[in-house]
Formats: sequence, structure tokens, C-alpha cells
Amino acid sequence: MQKIPYKIYLEESEMPKYWYNVRADMKNKPAPLLNPGTLKPMTAQELSGVFCEELVQQELDNETQQIEIPEEIREYYKMFRPSPLMRAYNLEKKLGTPAKIYYKFEGNNTSGSHKLNSAIAQAYYAKKQGLKGVTTETGAGQWGTALSMACSYFGLDCKVFMVKVSYEQKPFRREVMRTYGASVTPSPSDTTNVGRKMLEEFPGTTGSLGCAISEAVEVAVGTEGYRYVLGSVLNQVLLHQSVIGVETKTALDKFGIKPDIIIGCAGGGSNLGGLIAPFMGEKLRGEADYRIIAVEPASCPSLTRGKYVYDFCDTGMVCPLAKMYTLGNGFIPAPNHAGGLRYHGMSSVLSQLFDDGMMEARSVEQTQVFAAAEQFARTEGILPAPESAHAICAAVDEAMKCKETGEEKTIVFGLTGTGYFDMVAYEKYHNGEMSDYIPSDDDLAQGFATIPDIKL
Amino acid sequence: MQKIPYKIYLEESEMPKYWYNVRADMKNKPAPLLNPGTLKPMTAQELSGVFCEELVQQELDNETQQIEIPEEIREYYKMFRPSPLMRAYNLEKKLGTPAKIYYKFEGNNTSGSHKLNSAIAQAYYAKKQGLKGVTTETGAGQWGTALSMACSYFGLDCKVFMVKVSYEQKPFRREVMRTYGASVTPSPSDTTNVGRKMLEEFPGTTGSLGCAISEAVEVAVGTEGYRYVLGSVLNQVLLHQSVIGVETKTALDKFGIKPDIIIGCAGGGSNLGGLIAPFMGEKLRGEADYRIIAVEPASCPSLTRGKYVYDFCDTGMVCPLAKMYTLGNGFIPAPNHAGGLRYHGMSSVLSQLFDDGMMEARSVEQTQVFAAAEQFARTEGILPAPESAHAICAAVDEAMKCKETGEEKTIVFGLTGTGYFDMVAYEKYHNGEMSDYIPSDDDLAQGFATIPDIKL
Repeated sequence: MQKIPYKIYLEESEMPKYWYNVRADMKNKPAPLLNPGTLKPMTAQELSGVFCEELVQQELDNETQQIEIPEEIREYYKMFRPSPLMRAYNLEKKLGTPAKIYYKFEGNNTSGSHKLNSAIAQAYYAKKQGLKGVTTETGAGQWGTALSMACSYFGLDCKVFMVKVSYEQKPFRREVMRTYGASVTPSPSDTTNVGRKMLEEFPGTTGSLGCAISEAVEVAVGTEGYRYVLGSVLNQVLLHQSVIGVETKTALDKFGIKPDIIIGCAGGGSNLGGLIAPFMGEKLRGEADYRIIAVEPASCPSLTRGKYVYDFCDTGMVCPLAKMYTLGNGFIPAPNHAGGLRYHGMSSVLSQLFDDGMMEARSVEQTQVFAAAEQFARTEGILPAPESAHAICAAVDEAMKCKETGEEKTIVFGLTGTGYFDMVAYEKYHNGEMSDYIPSDDDLAQGFATIPDIKL
Repeated sequence: MQKIPYKIYLEESEMPKYWYNVRADMKNKPAPLLNPGTLKPMTAQELSGVFCEELVQQELDNETQQIEIPEEIREYYKMFRPSPLMRAYNLEKKLGTPAKIYYKFEGNNTSGSHKLNSAIAQAYYAKKQGLKGVTTETGAGQWGTALSMACSYFGLDCKVFMVKVSYEQKPFRREVMRTYGASVTPSPSDTTNVGRKMLEEFPGTTGSLGCAISEAVEVAVGTEGYRYVLGSVLNQVLLHQSVIGVETKTALDKFGIKPDIIIGCAGGGSNLGGLIAPFMGEKLRGEADYRIIAVEPASCPSLTRGKYVYDFCDTGMVCPLAKMYTLGNGFIPAPNHAGGLRYHGMSSVLSQLFDDGMMEARSVEQTQVFAAAEQFARTEGILPAPESAHAICAAVDEAMKCKETGEEKTIVFGLTGTGYFDMVAYEKYHNGEMSDYIPSDDDLAQGFATIPDIKL
């Protein structure tokens, strides 16, 4: 039998020409975004005040199974895609497992993660609409970097609100964004109403993703020729990220490989939703079965401990309501939480699929995550982002179960990015200064208290 | 005609099985290393006190044209190689040049540069010899990172002496090395005689590569089961790095492309020597002609303003003497110099080839380098290392000449690495705080004064 190479690369000609829209195959469609005033589904017109028009179409389209990737975007994809599907031969050997482990490595671009897949799409549609620029928020900085790169390519202005704690702890991320011409403002800032209000109420606050979103939306809505863009959670983002899954499936099919388990880390759901898309499609259509596992931090456990209800997407409550697994829009992970995956909610698509029993979820603690990250780095060479290491953790667990049972399962996980900008967290881990934190039920109750009481 | 893809990837089966040893095709061989005591060429026995035995063989072998890459090294190469040969379509469009620009991108691995090509080879031979560990020095940190990764793979201890200024300015580089299990000591340190002497004489010193080399050699020679390894300059390193050039040539040949100009940045010469190796071979054998251009910083101009004489490879004068273009072992680039390419000398192989008129050299100033880096990032997406941006600078210059003349020349340059750990320098550039510095003849005279007076 042909030996599977370490890296399966597709030819440019094999690259996806369509994004796959999993919503088309869902019997239970994800719940629509609601207008917080009327509690009615947001219309295209209402959404287009905030988002670009074609993106609004994609957001609302629950029917079209394949959506063509415009040629301009495919051309840009060619600069960093296809990403390699790697066979983790060395990790398998190290673990002594009969399992076959593959990972789709999305970190080989300057944004350091998969975020560029959607950033370039969103920038493209903004440019096509004749906009001057876009606003967004960034936490760990991967999304902001990706968007800066995309905007620079299309000559768009890019205003990034960066969660203050990250802005201060990750000055290098900020400088990368500046290299691509973006302006970066720490959030909360005094440049918006939401920000000023937050600073007044909580003078010492280090910010949150929910607050940065509110600021970015406020600026987009209030500035001629600008729209807001978001790097996760939304249907449109999962659609763009399906390029990960479609490439993965094409690569596996080339070698006749059928995975048993597919694993991804989950914050807002962009990577997981993208990686699993075509596999989930087969599962929804009854053509194949896969175990699909979402892995989230124990300190921000939206799927495993959240409520499946309507909640605001942002802290400032300027955004529409989304039905999702949520910890409450006021939830902020404990200060010891390192890295991303800190959003209070979860993509509506994934929330619905999880509620329908189509996938599993588990949470892991961060010292365990960094131990897995370090082991992975030493055996496979690549220094993973802490977010990605959540998936590594679960993949190793599953591979070790195979070692016990002797099963030769095929495991595929998403290695979303690299950890070059996360060395403060790695340093804490090396120095034994990293702690775990599992929120108590009382802690969670405080977050849940910020969920609006919606009667539909 | 077939459109050249953005990225030319070789199949695993097309990866080089041999390193190409350019010395075999040189009529004028590079001058041998000399024992500073006897001024006689260093024997294999003398060298094997410092270096691994098989590496000594490679160091001294001026005859064997192809040296087989051991299977264990080829297996490791497969984890991050072949590296892509990229067509810079977007840069060409931006410049409006008829030139065709290609770059060999070596930054897609966690060391962030081409250094891993030689690190894994040196670690392999150390392991094969049954050593416990190796010592080395690192400046910008790429070599130290690469060696840490390689040692972790083979279970070797790795002691890195890191130039103090880098140790302090690049704590993240240090943490990456620790992630791979290396110990990292700022140099000069009080753990060696050389270091203690240096600290006594120059209490405020921020260190130099030459001094860190001396410390690493002292520890290697004085510790049972250890040897010293070096990431550039040496013949063996250029041999290992020939994998870059062989891959590049294989990829070009696949598409019937013949380059006119080949460009690489030059510090100690590891990248340039590797990239040009097979092309230089053809040139030496009279089979083809290429313009080959070395690009160095104006603030550390060994080829363009140095002397071609015997000098010490290190500041502590514990190493053998090498005949090379040198600024003097006591030369230290001005404090405003950012990034690597700060070694006082140049590989003996490249020095000889340059002296024989087989290649050109030019120097560029650093604000110009960062301008080229930023333009490249914005058009091609990849954030380059400052070192690599020297080559970009020259490639753009040559492409602009083509624009004037209308010539459709094919330019290939080496993009040795990524700039993720160089954001302090980028920040200076963005803030307008970066300056240029061209050493005066008097400045250079101070360095030249440290060259030993050797009468052969």
C-alpha cells in the first residue's frame, strides 16, 4: 500500500471552488438573529446597516448548499492555501498508539491561524461594495492580524479594537497589524459611547471581547462608508471556513482515508464549524457517520455548561440577539485564562447541531492543554497556539484510548494556528506559575444573570 | 503555456537525497581552517575535539560532490520540507515589472528560518556519535530555536548561549527554546572563563556573537560527552543548506524555468551558500551562467568592505582561524543595527567564490530594508524577517531595472524566514525611530585592528 506522506498537499487545481454551507443540509435550521427591539428575525435590510450586503445574503442563506468562491478570493487563497494535511507519525510513535492521527495545519500564514480564510472573503465583499473600510475587534490578535492583511491587500482602511489586556500583553501582535496598515485601539476606549460608559463603570477593566465588539459596531454604524466584520460565531464565517473541511476531505479522499473521529477546538466556532462542515454534511444526509468532538476550555465552557437560549452577541447589547449556548454576555473568563477561546457564546449553527446530538463536547483545563502543546511541539516540531492545543489534548486522549483497546482509529484534528505570540503563557507554564480554574456554579450564575429575559 | 502556480511544491519523492558539495567543483578551494598555535591546517583529530566526527569529515571534504542525506534526516525534513518556491505574482503586479520573481520560502517551520536544515543534521550526527548534548550560540535566536527543536527530537541536551542584548529584547525566543527543552544562558555569562573575562573588561557589554561562540566552545570542550555546533559560516553548514538550492533547482527545472539572477542575504553565508550551491556548481563547471548577488547590511559589510585574510571566528580567540572576508573579530555592529546578519566574517567558501569573481555583493541600509519588508508583507502576505528583507530589497531593485529596460528577467531570491520575533524593530520603523548607519573608515579600522597578524 502506498505510504501516506507526512504532508498531503493538494494541487492548486484541486483547491475548493465552492464553500460548503452546512445549513442547507440541516433539518433543524439554526435559529435566526433577532432584532432586540422587536424580537423579530433581523431582515436583510436591518443587517446591511452593520454588515456588507453580500455577507448578509450569506448570513441568511440556509438553503444553498454550495456557494461559489469568487475568483479574487481564490487567487488570494493560493498565496497561503491549500494548507497541508499532516500525518502525525512522530506523535503516534511517541504515544505508542495504533491510532492514525492527522491534523490540518492552518498556521502557515502570517496571521498565524485559519482566520485569514474568512478575513479575505469579508474584505473582498467590502471592497466590492465600494466601502472605505471596516471595523472589528480582536482578542488574542489572530483575527485582527488576518483582517489587517486582507484589508491591506484590497486597499481598505482597517480599524481594530483590541481587548486591552491583549493590547498590553501582546505589543508584537499590534505591530504586525500596524505593518499591514491597520489602526489598533485598546478596548474599552474613550472613542466610543460604549467604551466611555464601560470605563466609567469599571475604571480598572482590562476589557472583554464582548465590549470590543460593541465599540467596533458603534464606529462602523456611525462612520460613512464603513461596515463591521466579525471573525467567528456568524453563519457567514463558518461558511468561509468550510474551505478547511473541504480541503481536508479532498485530501483524505485522495488516499481513500475515512476518519473515525474529527476534533476541533471551539471558541466562537469558526475553526470547528469549518473543519467539520463537509463531514457533518455527510452525517446529516445519512451518508456516513463520524464522531465529532468540540473541545473548549474548562474556564469558558459554553457548550458543556452554558444555556441554549437567546443572548446578546456583545456586552454593550448593541448587536442582535443570537440563540446559542451561552454563559451570558456579561461572562468574563477568570484572569488566569491564557489565549483565546474566551467568547461567552457559540455559533448558532454549532449550537443547534450540538443540541441535536450531532456532535459531542468536552472541556479541558489549561495546564493539561499546555502539557499537550509542549509534547506536540517536541515531537511534531510545530509550536501550537494554546487554542489549537485544546484539540491536541483531546486527540491524544482518543489515541491513548486506542492504545488500550488496540483499535486503529483514524483521528483528524484541526491545528488552527501557531503559538509564536503566546510565549508569555508558555513562560508561565514553564515556570510552574500557570493554574487551572473551573468556574463554580455560583460563578456561572453571575454570567447567566446577564442573559436577557426573552419571551418569544 | 502552463500557468506557473503561486507555490511550487515538490512531492516527497522528489525531495533531495543528496546534499550538493560545491567545493568539489571549485578550482580554487576554500582556504583551510588553521590551528592558531601552529598556523597549520586543522587536522580531523584536532577538529574532533570540538565538532562531531562525521561533521568534521564533511568540513574537510573538498572532493565529494554529492553527500547522501541519512534517512533519519530525510524523515525529519519531511515534517517541514519541501519548502515552497513561491511566484511573487502580486509583488510583480505592484511593481509593474516585466520581471518574473520567485522566492524560496524557508520560514514555514517553528524555528522561523532555514536554520533547521542544518540543525537537524548536526543533532543527528551528535546522537549517532553517542553524545549527551551540544552547545551553541545564538544571536537573533533563529539558530538557537532550530537547534533546540532538533535536539528535542533526538533526545539530546542543548545549551544555548544567547547574545545578551537579544536575550533581553527577545524573551519570547528564549521561551520557544525552553519549550523544546533547551537551557538558555545570556552571554557574556559568569559560567565560563571567556565570559567572566569579558564581563570584567566590559562590565556593561550587551554581548556579541563572537563572544557567545567562545563561551559555547569552552563549555563543549570542557564537558564530557558534549560537542559544539554552529549555525553558519562552516563548510558543513553550507553543505546541509544546499538542500534549499537543490529543491529550488528541481522545482524550477520541473517548469523549465532558468533564472537569470539569484539573490540571497548574507551574514555568515548559510542561506546564500545553500541557495546558490547547485547553480554555482553549473557556473563553475561552465554549464550555465547566472548573476549571483549577496546582500549584506551597510552596517556590517564584510564582503563589500572587509578584508580577505585569516581571522579568528570568535572574539575570545579560542576557535581556529579562517580565511574569509572579515571586519575583524572585534567588530561589533552599531547599536542601531536590528536583526541578524551581524557576524564579522563570511563563510570561507563564499569568500573564495567572491574573490574569484563568481558572485557580486552589495550592501543596503536598514530603513530601506524595512520599507521593502513592509511593501512585501502588504503585497505577498508574508511578514519577512529583517534578514530576509535584505534579499527582497535587491530583488525589487533588479525588478525595477527590468521595468526600465523592459527585460523579462527571472529573479529568484531566498526568503529565509519570518519576522514574528522582530516586532521591536518593526515598531521602531513604524514610529520613525529607526536610523541608518554606515560605518566610517575609522570605525572599520578599529575592527581591522583586531585581526591577528598572521605570516604564512
